[in-house]
Amino acid sequence: MANDTPDHSDPITAADVAGALTRLRAQAPRVHCLTNAVAQAFTANVLLALGAVPSMTIAREEVPSFVAGAGALLVNLGTLDPARNEAIEVALDVVGDRAIPWVLDPVFADVSAPRLDVASFLLKRGPTVLRANERELAALAGGDVGEAALRAKTTIARTGAVDVVTDGTRTAWVDNGSAMLTKITATGCAAGAVVGAFLAVEPDPVVAATAALTVFGVAAEIAGETAAGPGSFAVALLDALYSLDEAILHEKARLT
Amino acid sequence: MANDTPDHSDPITAADVAGALTRLRAQAPRVHCLTNAVAQAFTANVLLALGAVPSMTIAREEVPSFVAGAGALLVNLGTLDPARNEAIEVALDVVGDRAIPWVLDPVFADVSAPRLDVASFLLKRGPTVLRANERELAALAGGDVGEAALRAKTTIARTGAVDVVTDGTRTAWVDNGSAMLTKITATGCAAGAVVGAFLAVEPDPVVAATAALTVFGVAAEIAGETAAGPGSFAVALLDALYSLDEAILHEKARLT
Amino acid sequence: MANDTPDHSDPITAADVAGALTRLRAQAPRVHCLTNAVAQAFTANVLLALGAVPSMTIAREEVPSFVAGAGALLVNLGTLDPARNEAIEVALDVVGDRAIPWVLDPVFADVSAPRLDVASFLLKRGPTVLRANERELAALAGGDVGEAALRAKTTIARTGAVDVVTDGTRTAWVDNGSAMLTKITATGCAAGAVVGAFLAVEPDPVVAATAALTVFGVAAEIAGETAAGPGSFAVALLDALYSLDEAILHEKARLT
Repeated sequence: MANDTPDHSDPITAADVAGALTRLRAQAPRVHCLTNAVAQAFTANVLLALGAVPSMTIAREEVPSFVAGAGALLVNLGTLDPARNEAIEVALDVVGDRAIPWVLDPVFADVSAPRLDVASFLLKRGPTVLRANERELAALAGGDVGEAALRAKTTIARTGAVDVVTDGTRTAWVDNGSAMLTKITATGCAAGAVVGAFLAVEPDPVVAATAALTVFGVAAEIAGETAAGPGSFAVALLDALYSLDEAILHEKARLT
Repeated sequence: MANDTPDHSDPITAADVAGALTRLRAQAPRVHCLTNAVAQAFTANVLLALGAVPSMTIAREEVPSFVAGAGALLVNLGTLDPARNEAIEVALDVVGDRAIPWVLDPVFADVSAPRLDVASFLLKRGPTVLRANERELAALAGGDVGEAALRAKTTIARTGAVDVVTDGTRTAWVDNGSAMLTKITATGCAAGAVVGAFLAVEPDPVVAATAALTVFGVAAEIAGETAAGPGSFAVALLDALYSLDEAILHEKARLT
Repeated sequence: MANDTPDHSDPITAADVAGALTRLRAQAPRVHCLTNAVAQAFTANVLLALGAVPSMTIAREEVPSFVAGAGALLVNLGTLDPARNEAIEVALDVVGDRAIPWVLDPVFADVSAPRLDVASFLLKRGPTVLRANERELAALAGGDVGEAALRAKTTIARTGAVDVVTDGTRTAWVDNGSAMLTKITATGCAAGAVVGAFLAVEPDPVVAATAALTVFGVAAEIAGETAAGPGSFAVALLDALYSLDEAILHEKARLT
């Protein structure tokens, strides 16, 4: 039963998620995304479908202006290169000065040693939320998600068959999604951007990350019900994010 | 009523637009696009669906060959970086020597001071058409579109709920489009490329820009009639650009 | 009639193609793609829909780790720039040491002299398969595909209305496909990546390239049967690659 006056030491509910989505749609926050070239267009479209506004430049001179006015920052390490490394440095100085929430997404940190080094360094900079899959998290912070969160003093959103969000004290499980999410590129990257969008409207990072993964998972579930394959799934996912409302979330969210 | 022998001091008509589209399809001009990474694939697909041919390289050594043989050039400032800045310099030298028409699209010039500087500098280089939304135009050239066009000695295509095309003397309003255009990324950037494609087949920049925005707006309108959300809208927009013909333009164009 | 114990001096059959696809789905090889920015997302989605795994980084420090563990490498020259040139050098050292198969795709080598130089240099490095269209091949290696293959000591996959695969001794023709393939960007680039995916599971490059072009062509044919235009075609192509099975290949492959 949805809880209209949520106490966040209580379990996070569909009502919390629905309320955060309504605030997101009303405020339309801009999320600045330092993300990989493969994911940029899809990530931008996911944010727009959801009701947020993407910006994407990685040019060193421009990053301060774009980040300073943003509601949140996404730092995604896919296709890492010197220009992106510089942009990340500049951006983190701005978010530090202004207390802008930011998400670290260490894509493929388990595959490449230089990337793991960068990810470890950035984790020490204190992301508001770390989004990773099981392999990336194990490489970066060890296998136990709760201990990793306590050690890194951050909220971890670990995506997988069932998503887990925890700061080491409170934990939420999100059992929404679709196997088809693994059959199109950049869905994980886009989920990281959605976490950013919710951080811009919800100060509690555990609630924000849980809301993001629930919204994304429910939309994926709806898309998966009708898709004939990954092409139509990607189209239906954007449509579902756009159409999602509080009633659908109350009906479909599977949160524990 | 369509005018078969258009006098361009007269209003621009659906017949002018339809004729330009037929020439575009027959000539299949190549448009070289110096555009941002987020917009590249969608822009290429919009040009192909329309019947034009995209090329996209920003490598300094290659830009001269690619621009020299192109029917038009697009200079879009989204995700500006040093490599793109260099490519723009090289490209503008080529279009100056060869009288190739070019479009300037100062994306987000209102958000970032360094970007506004680049846009102001490029505006002095004399683009054939400046495409901008209301905020970008206000930051770059002031709020009155007619005065801005006269001052900059260019044709301005200002996109919005109603698009305006003017060189300060003649003005056309295009009242086609769809609110869904703001819900997918790179639609404005792609519209700029479409202006380039029409400049390659129509020497009068006011007619070319009006034709481009009418064609793009009518296709968006058709797509918006059936789309369930932004995912299916983007798909339907490409299909509509591909299927557009003179009869549909005569029926749907709302030009004044 | 399909041949269950193929002798590859015999014609390549639908059974060879179907068997290779089944192995590809079982092994899910990773293909590292050094490809152009325009093509990255679509190429990744084509590989995922097919059952392979894409990786895409071009960062010099990371390319060795990513290539060393890959089943195949794609070197695509679209949007060539200094960073990509370096990544190619580093990657080819790794594939040389480890005997990893690789595909060269000299996109637009016919348009730009510097690009033709790079392509000629890379062709001497001995790609396992050269994928090119008729114009690119003529510029790079001359008009006769069989002689070009013998001279370059490689397998050539020349795509067009009818695709030709030859090492100069054995030749296969693939008469599947759709005219709509020319109306969306990056389909040729994606086909090159699919050749890479089949090279990872089939040691004979003539069989691998023929299987790749047959699978891609049959999927395109299926997509073309229902598509209303290039937008819905791109969606249906991904769905068809995902749904393709041995029975469909036996029914639709047109190989000689």
